[in-house]
Amino acid sequence: MNDTLERVAEVIASRKGGDPDKSYVARLFHKGDDAICKKIGEEATEVVLAAKDIRIGGADDLRQKLVNETADLWFHCMVLLAHHDLSPNEVLAELARREGLSGLVEKAQRGTRGEHAD
Amino acid sequence: MNDTLERVAEVIASRKGGDPDKSYVARLFHKGDDAICKKIGEEATEVVLAAKDIRIGGADDLRQKLVNETADLWFHCMVLLAHHDLSPNEVLAELARREGLSGLVEKAQRGTRGEHAD
Amino acid sequence: MNDTLERVAEVIASRKGGDPDKSYVARLFHKGDDAICKKIGEEATEVVLAAKDIRIGGADDLRQKLVNETADLWFHCMVLLAHHDLSPNEVLAELARREGLSGLVEKAQRGTRGEHAD
Amino acid sequence: MNDTLERVAEVIASRKGGDPDKSYVARLFHKGDDAICKKIGEEATEVVLAAKDIRIGGADDLRQKLVNETADLWFHCMVLLAHHDLSPNEVLAELARREGLSGLVEKAQRGTRGEHAD
Repeated sequence: MNDTLERVAEVIASRKGGDPDKSYVARLFHKGDDAICKKIGEEATEVVLAAKDIRIGGADDLRQKLVNETADLWFHCMVLLAHHDLSPNEVLAELARREGLSGLVEKAQRGTRGEHAD
Repeated sequence: MNDTLERVAEVIASRKGGDPDKSYVARLFHKGDDAICKKIGEEATEVVLAAKDIRIGGADDLRQKLVNETADLWFHCMVLLAHHDLSPNEVLAELARREGLSGLVEKAQRGTRGEHAD
Repeated sequence: MNDTLERVAEVIASRKGGDPDKSYVARLFHKGDDAICKKIGEEATEVVLAAKDIRIGGADDLRQKLVNETADLWFHCMVLLAHHDLSPNEVLAELARREGLSGLVEKAQRGTRGEHAD
Repeated sequence: MNDTLERVAEVIASRKGGDPDKSYVARLFHKGDDAICKKIGEEATEVVLAAKDIRIGGADDLRQKLVNETADLWFHCMVLLAHHDLSPNEVLAELARREGLSGLVEKAQRGTRGEHAD
């Protein structure tokens, strides 16, 4: 599972310049970054709707729906990154950098007042 | 880098029930899922703004800004997942499942008409 | 122009329970509030994209595009309101209430220190 | 109520160049269009959350909350319009134009097959 983002990013990148009639991602690249951005706005809204649906309840697979919508959102973020020749690895590096800083902050705070932070 | 999401998810999960005055994430959990959802809508908009800024151009670090905003968005998605006892691994599993399906579709199509799809 | 919102709201309300195959709005009502909410997330993103495009510049009608996207967003807000048997008049009443309060605040401030606020 | 949007737009326009410390709207103008766009993404999400809350139910004033959030969204749209020297009247003109077209389409259809459209 560890290299999933990387493999998905490779598939996405391989669609750049591809035939818009044969691939959804090639079609998005062809339409340009506004089309990709619209999808991000749309998918973010779907994540929010899925989260609220869990609170409403009533169906078994509502948590899986939140997972699926989050996958949709991240997927389209990766398309946007690829459009700008960026990869999810750079997002992970940024998250790691912050988590490292958070770790340092935590350690420093544990030393002085035994507290956690982020 | 491979386990970054997992480590970040662990830090996030460890904040559940934490002191809202000491941790931003504990504060989000404390406020509830509407507050988390609002952040997702906000961060998605910031991703879109950052993407458009690259087109406008004029500064060196605009691509890094897109990376940072995407990291913000994914981070808050992980907070929402954690709120529902879900982890990014489930999102990766869903992405892998689709990529696998895509691979199967591709293979089938290569066999019959030498074309790629996703 | 003064009664435009009211007339548009009447057209929208008249589509409730209409044939989804013959009217876009009837189709939205038929699909339900999630479909309407998705459109609001999508149209809000388009407003943001149109606003950034004005900054990028290069075409004559970019300001009109912002007007059009805002019209789209408000239109779908009115569909959502109608879904809950609400009308734009109630939104206007709320805006008037705030503007009235703002007027009172202004007057009070003008009296004491000659300043404006909102 | 008919001229509410106009009056609110006047108040908003009067804040351009105003003291950011004394007025929320002057502060938004001062921060620039990205700050205004972020608010639109945020308020659109709040409209969506309020709509879902009505479905969840349980409180008396949930429909009023949807009205309030829609007022917030429209208000910030008017700030964005004012930033680009546009007014809500232009949005109303666009809505009227479409409604007029819709009326024409309807009439034409009534003539030929007695059906309504929009």
